[in-house]
Amino acid sequence: MFQGLELAAVIASAVYGVLLAHRHQMDLVGAYSLALVVSFGGGTIRDLCLDRTPLFWIHHYNYPIVVFAIAVAGSMFPRITHKTEPWLRIPDALGLGLFTIAGVESALAAETSYFIAALFGVITGTFGGVIGDIICNRVPSLFRPAPMFATCAFSGAWLYLLLQAMPGLQRYAVVIATAFIVVFRIAALRYDWRLPHREFQE
Amino acid sequence: MFQGLELAAVIASAVYGVLLAHRHQMDLVGAYSLALVVSFGGGTIRDLCLDRTPLFWIHHYNYPIVVFAIAVAGSMFPRITHKTEPWLRIPDALGLGLFTIAGVESALAAETSYFIAALFGVITGTFGGVIGDIICNRVPSLFRPAPMFATCAFSGAWLYLLLQAMPGLQRYAVVIATAFIVVFRIAALRYDWRLPHREFQE
Amino acid sequence: MFQGLELAAVIASAVYGVLLAHRHQMDLVGAYSLALVVSFGGGTIRDLCLDRTPLFWIHHYNYPIVVFAIAVAGSMFPRITHKTEPWLRIPDALGLGLFTIAGVESALAAETSYFIAALFGVITGTFGGVIGDIICNRVPSLFRPAPMFATCAFSGAWLYLLLQAMPGLQRYAVVIATAFIVVFRIAALRYDWRLPHREFQE
Repeated sequence: MFQGLELAAVIASAVYGVLLAHRHQMDLVGAYSLALVVSFGGGTIRDLCLDRTPLFWIHHYNYPIVVFAIAVAGSMFPRITHKTEPWLRIPDALGLGLFTIAGVESALAAETSYFIAALFGVITGTFGGVIGDIICNRVPSLFRPAPMFATCAFSGAWLYLLLQAMPGLQRYAVVIATAFIVVFRIAALRYDWRLPHREFQE
Repeated sequence: MFQGLELAAVIASAVYGVLLAHRHQMDLVGAYSLALVVSFGGGTIRDLCLDRTPLFWIHHYNYPIVVFAIAVAGSMFPRITHKTEPWLRIPDALGLGLFTIAGVESALAAETSYFIAALFGVITGTFGGVIGDIICNRVPSLFRPAPMFATCAFSGAWLYLLLQAMPGLQRYAVVIATAFIVVFRIAALRYDWRLPHREFQE
Repeated sequence: MFQGLELAAVIASAVYGVLLAHRHQMDLVGAYSLALVVSFGGGTIRDLCLDRTPLFWIHHYNYPIVVFAIAVAGSMFPRITHKTEPWLRIPDALGLGLFTIAGVESALAAETSYFIAALFGVITGTFGGVIGDIICNRVPSLFRPAPMFATCAFSGAWLYLLLQAMPGLQRYAVVIATAFIVVFRIAALRYDWRLPHREFQE
């Protein structure tokens, strides 16, 4: 079941990458590269920083092929691909939840501190999109005022760490924390929840 | 002989990096940094992802000195450097071929799947230029419609994998696949071969 | 004492990252991310390339928490933060000196050549700011004509390597080379020392 959800998250990220590439007039090479970066970028930074070997997408060697199929299909049928966008919110939020909790678990397995484990959760869940934005020559939208995204991941990561410390709830920690992130993210989008922010005037 | 060709490929990439830096009004620090990134960026990503140690340019410790000499000479004589540009096509194509096949070999040595080995070939051959473009604040030209470049590397990587599987041809695989990439790339430039691409309208 | 100076350097870099984020209208997520990248980016590239484990900011697990506190305080009191900018020159120069020499030492410990050790000194001391600029969608200021910065680090790195080779001076090498970089950098700012540079016209 986790495998199935993870695959859904990879697919949602890949479609997002293809859409981003099309918006910037890229061809198939760009669509595939962006789809790879958005899907695997966060997890790759995590694996490199924690010295985990082999990288998760080298281990799950079918993931890059799935992403390739999405990039090819998305480039052949761009209009259909763009029509899927409104349907991506739920798999996208699911991807945020799953990747974040997987990132926290990897960091704990490498015996980092709790704070750093929460950071790796956020990096795994969100930095694929950040690198995608940098490649497209945009200031990363994650860093600009917008409905909460990193905040959902960060608080969900702490919830997971808290549940892990409670003997009775430990076994439900993954499910509860992932569900918390998904619901939090969808609510943040729906009700436009943002971090407080003062515009800076020099 | 491979060493000599590899050195030619490093030099061609370094000159390309210096030209890119000058076009963006950079000084010597920028010229050397870009020359390093364009020459070594793709191979560095490969070595980090495959956990190969030491990095190839730390092992071949003279390469960064050669690149330094090119950056200094290129900054002292910018007009001469820019006149070499039309002569760079062949060493550039040679670099694409050599770096791609070296990337495939490294990935196979790390026991990745064939598809992932072909990906690492493309990454090794092309991502130095991608990082160079990102630093110069341009959407990477590799990802935009243009004469085929990544496609030459990708198909050459598969040709190499195919030849490797044929007992009689195995020993010629490096030479044939590298030559294929070089000829394919020069022909793509000459005849403006591109991937099919539909402009996307939102 | 080294610990205290290093902490001062991390704080100066983090404040610089927060200021950069505010200038680009980022929120708290952006301020923290940029503060992390500017403070830890150069050392992270060094540790990954030299295969050093764990990364220094995972080992010093309080550093990311200090940076978090700075990002929160900086976002709550942006005007006060921006008033600290003129006072950042000395800790900034100190950070350049300390990070550079720490980078050289790490590279020597990994048995690289002298030239590559000097390169890693410069990378450790300066590349955090480079990645910060790339994220903010600017051509890195390190690569453009400006008062010397990388040059101070590079010459200080060579001075350190030279002193290391002199039996009597070996024990003072860290202090002398760091002080040299700090003074050189402050003088370069004060007297506008730059590398010779010819504007390139195509």
